[in-house]
Amino acid sequence: MAKSDIDVLIKLVAKLPALGTRSARRIVLHLLKNKDTQLTPLIEALQNLNENVKACRICHNFDTSEICSICGDEKRDSKTLCIVQDVTDLWAMERSGFYKGKYHVLGGVLSAIDGVLPQDLNIDSLIARLSSEGVTEVILALPATVDGQITVQYLLHHLKPLNVKLSTLALGLPVGAELDYMDDGTIEMALQSRKQM
Amino acid sequence: MAKSDIDVLIKLVAKLPALGTRSARRIVLHLLKNKDTQLTPLIEALQNLNENVKACRICHNFDTSEICSICGDEKRDSKTLCIVQDVTDLWAMERSGFYKGKYHVLGGVLSAIDGVLPQDLNIDSLIARLSSEGVTEVILALPATVDGQITVQYLLHHLKPLNVKLSTLALGLPVGAELDYMDDGTIEMALQSRKQM
Repeated sequence: MAKSDIDVLIKLVAKLPALGTRSARRIVLHLLKNKDTQLTPLIEALQNLNENVKACRICHNFDTSEICSICGDEKRDSKTLCIVQDVTDLWAMERSGFYKGKYHVLGGVLSAIDGVLPQDLNIDSLIARLSSEGVTEVILALPATVDGQITVQYLLHHLKPLNVKLSTLALGLPVGAELDYMDDGTIEMALQSRKQM
Repeated sequence: MAKSDIDVLIKLVAKLPALGTRSARRIVLHLLKNKDTQLTPLIEALQNLNENVKACRICHNFDTSEICSICGDEKRDSKTLCIVQDVTDLWAMERSGFYKGKYHVLGGVLSAIDGVLPQDLNIDSLIARLSSEGVTEVILALPATVDGQITVQYLLHHLKPLNVKLSTLALGLPVGAELDYMDDGTIEMALQSRKQM
């Protein structure tokens, strides 16, 4: 079978998140059919990524410089730190455009099932930053999953003695939601955290 | 925003079939986190694809040589030609392992909506092959969609005068199917084409 170059690539693409063998086949064929318009630019962009992008050594965000553009931005409030699970969550926060402080990327959440322990996360560097950067407020923007909320409890326990203002994201109805489509847990949280008007 | 290298790549990945912006973000982040194990091999495999793989000038299959391994295989029956819509369909036929003849990739099906006309498909080269290669049987393995079946009718009309045996794939229940889960059209076709035992 001489189509080994194709097979090697299909196997690599199929390993990417959200993809399987079937979609990998479609993607590889699509690239073959659009060599100039899509394959060549994709190769260049991947090479740029490989050579230029690295983790920020302060907050673990990805960027082209040693210190990312958010950590290096003088205009952002360096007294407030938002803790996120991953860089995608940081991007989501940035897209919403509301938050003007700095970030710290944990690199995951604690998980008994996946065997993720506190030492696997960027917690030591977080605690070091709190004192060295004079942070006064920490927002725990972790996912509203079991593992996410266990990580929130773990961090609250360890950050409370450090005398900073701590908060977590509100749990409740997502904007635009119909009650009818919400799960029981969300409705319960929205009720419990109801706001007096 | 200094994360332009990342954004460029996300936009390129999001344009691939079966992917959108959200999955593109996840894939790019995954590649960033696994530079050595996944990003570098992926770049190499894409470069190999770009440099080595081209369309077979006989059947329009993709391979590393001018004439693909199937067209070049002396053991395969060159009197039988299977017409497929695309290379992915050829791969599917090859995986089933049942067919031992050769192929001709049409490169699409006729479509009024997408504006695909006969001259956009590899039909001229198909008709040329029929006489030059002494083909005696043509199997139309086109999709069981409206466009696919219109293309079948078009090809039947143009191939009948050429005095070759023509057939199309059987329509009916897929193997393992429960009647309860089948659509009306499939049940009707399975009934119409019922086999006397």
